[in-house]
Amino acid sequence: MLNSAYEEAASLPKLNITEIDLQWVQVLSEGWAYPLRGFMREEEFLQSQHFNCLIKNGVAINQSIPIVLPVTNQDKQRLDGNSAFSLCFSNIPVAIMRKPEFYYHRKEERCARQFGTVNKDHPYVKMVFESGDWLVGGDLEVLNRIRWNDGLDEYRLTPNELRVKFKQMNADAVFAFQLRNPIHNGHALLMSDTKKQLQERGYKRPVLLLHPLGGWVKDDDVPLPVRMLQHQAVLDEGLLDKSSTILAIFPSPMMYAGPTEVQWHAKARMNAGTNFYIVGRDPAGIPHPLGTEGSPDGNLYDVTHGSRVLKMAPGLNTLEIIPFKVAAYDTRDGKMAFFDPTRKGDFDFISGTKMRRLARLGDNPPDGFMAPKAWTVLANYYQSLNKQEY
Amino acid sequence: MLNSAYEEAASLPKLNITEIDLQWVQVLSEGWAYPLRGFMREEEFLQSQHFNCLIKNGVAINQSIPIVLPVTNQDKQRLDGNSAFSLCFSNIPVAIMRKPEFYYHRKEERCARQFGTVNKDHPYVKMVFESGDWLVGGDLEVLNRIRWNDGLDEYRLTPNELRVKFKQMNADAVFAFQLRNPIHNGHALLMSDTKKQLQERGYKRPVLLLHPLGGWVKDDDVPLPVRMLQHQAVLDEGLLDKSSTILAIFPSPMMYAGPTEVQWHAKARMNAGTNFYIVGRDPAGIPHPLGTEGSPDGNLYDVTHGSRVLKMAPGLNTLEIIPFKVAAYDTRDGKMAFFDPTRKGDFDFISGTKMRRLARLGDNPPDGFMAPKAWTVLANYYQSLNKQEY
Repeated sequence: MLNSAYEEAASLPKLNITEIDLQWVQVLSEGWAYPLRGFMREEEFLQSQHFNCLIKNGVAINQSIPIVLPVTNQDKQRLDGNSAFSLCFSNIPVAIMRKPEFYYHRKEERCARQFGTVNKDHPYVKMVFESGDWLVGGDLEVLNRIRWNDGLDEYRLTPNELRVKFKQMNADAVFAFQLRNPIHNGHALLMSDTKKQLQERGYKRPVLLLHPLGGWVKDDDVPLPVRMLQHQAVLDEGLLDKSSTILAIFPSPMMYAGPTEVQWHAKARMNAGTNFYIVGRDPAGIPHPLGTEGSPDGNLYDVTHGSRVLKMAPGLNTLEIIPFKVAAYDTRDGKMAFFDPTRKGDFDFISGTKMRRLARLGDNPPDGFMAPKAWTVLANYYQSLNKQEY
Repeated sequence: MLNSAYEEAASLPKLNITEIDLQWVQVLSEGWAYPLRGFMREEEFLQSQHFNCLIKNGVAINQSIPIVLPVTNQDKQRLDGNSAFSLCFSNIPVAIMRKPEFYYHRKEERCARQFGTVNKDHPYVKMVFESGDWLVGGDLEVLNRIRWNDGLDEYRLTPNELRVKFKQMNADAVFAFQLRNPIHNGHALLMSDTKKQLQERGYKRPVLLLHPLGGWVKDDDVPLPVRMLQHQAVLDEGLLDKSSTILAIFPSPMMYAGPTEVQWHAKARMNAGTNFYIVGRDPAGIPHPLGTEGSPDGNLYDVTHGSRVLKMAPGLNTLEIIPFKVAAYDTRDGKMAFFDPTRKGDFDFISGTKMRRLARLGDNPPDGFMAPKAWTVLANYYQSLNKQEY
């Protein structure tokens, strides 16, 4: 008789998975996608694709993005018919997949319904088309908590651990801020403003979940370790109130799927006990691969659709959506402020491109754009890229 | 003061609409898409695209396909800012659009989310890409009941008229059969079988709504007048019980959008008071424009997805879905019968292509495939096509 899941996993047929697959294993095993606990079977996949929801006992629960495991033809032929096999990362078993169900990976249709495009120059769509021709769903049993040993695991709190923290902090309201970019003072302003709004509504102890995405991002996004240093610097400089903020990492990969993905970002935080979700302009957006040939403003998604779709999305019942006011650099007052359309000439929208250029050149942004220590973190990162290029 | 909607319509700015647009006007004005009563505004469009539902007071009501009115840049510029304009077909005002809302027609995203493809060789996708760059939604006021004066208007019953008929017939259950093709004896068998099933469940007076789609279809589908003669011949020959059948026309255009469209076909019949909906293999399916380069079996949609998605679809609460058994020609018994996999060599799946070839050549199908008078209708049609080609 086998005396542990480890021994069983070692004895089973094996399937090697990618780093992104492992990120999804972490997402599933920690409960971010609850009630989904394993890679989707075809019924769940179809529900997600057509309704952006899972239907459980007639009730719709938001699940806008498919969480699926692609396998090659060869692996499918080798594994189909087994009642279980183990998932291995770097040749080490990390989980057991039980009662597997293989189904054809209709890549064109999947991308069309999830991303609203099948253009292979979209970075996640490209990966879908390069992945295996089959999907396999099933029950997932993880052998050990997923750890990345990159010095950041302490920030990777599970939904249950976050709930405990909120309780310890006596939070009577938790508001989440999802981000995958450095924090500038405009972001800090809107987080502080949200807190103030909640206090005005009678909450005594609103807590901010500052929750950068920690999984795969496209190459030109700022890497997670740099972002974490940058976020920590923002907290250290007092632009956000440390005593009512939890900085933690959301382990999901990024998909750049706009209105479809923002629902996932909100749902996962709802599962962690968050009550309020801040949504901005063009959440999870990306330029259209064809630029202004692809859409009038060059964006893949209408910049207003994300927050509008999120506000209407079914199955997010315990979450209140707080729309983001646009902040920009107010040249009159020399600080980031909510955009005032009556004097729009005073405002400078400092784009990511402009920020990167300044950082690479060793120039400083205008005073009040970003906490100085946080800017230094970024500038060092971009200047290290310069050196790599020489 | 204006003394009628006609005078008002004549005085308003005008927008010329296409025949397919007019078919949608009929669909909307007769209540098939209820609670949608006019071309979709952007909020409704987004709900349909992302959730396959409209969300009304927090309740999801199935509406899987967008019903939208495209307009050109030029017309948008001319009409935007008016509180109302009239819709004209063949230069005659047919309806007034009030409180219009113009929004950008994101064709790639629309097709991706509705059809799961953006391939312009799909016949409806092609039309979307060729249509105007804007959509306009608004309140719709139809001046007169839509009539086509093709000798078939008596078959075009509204949902309310159908409900009255069902009541007159003392129906205690109504089951709908959607079709856009000629009826062969396999179809007749499953309709009779459904009736028997319902009787076994205790219904005393099940009524069949035999409901061919009457709007736009692709060029190689059989035209509506021929199909109506063919269906009437099937009834005349007694293959379906006339006394418990209503033959009527569903005014919607066809979209060939598979699992997304079948929900629309079911929802519209639910709005007409139908309780049961028969769904078959690959409903609203179409070959992939790239054939087997596009999918393993050459179909745009997995042939099982339509009925599976329909059975799970939210917002179809008062409708029971009855899956279709596959019927084929049983060469042993010389008749259409439910496929028996234990003696599959006996069954001949007579495809549409094979049927067309037989009809064009003046050959007869095997005895028992189709009622003889109904076959004659079809054969005459295909032979008239032969003549046109010479």
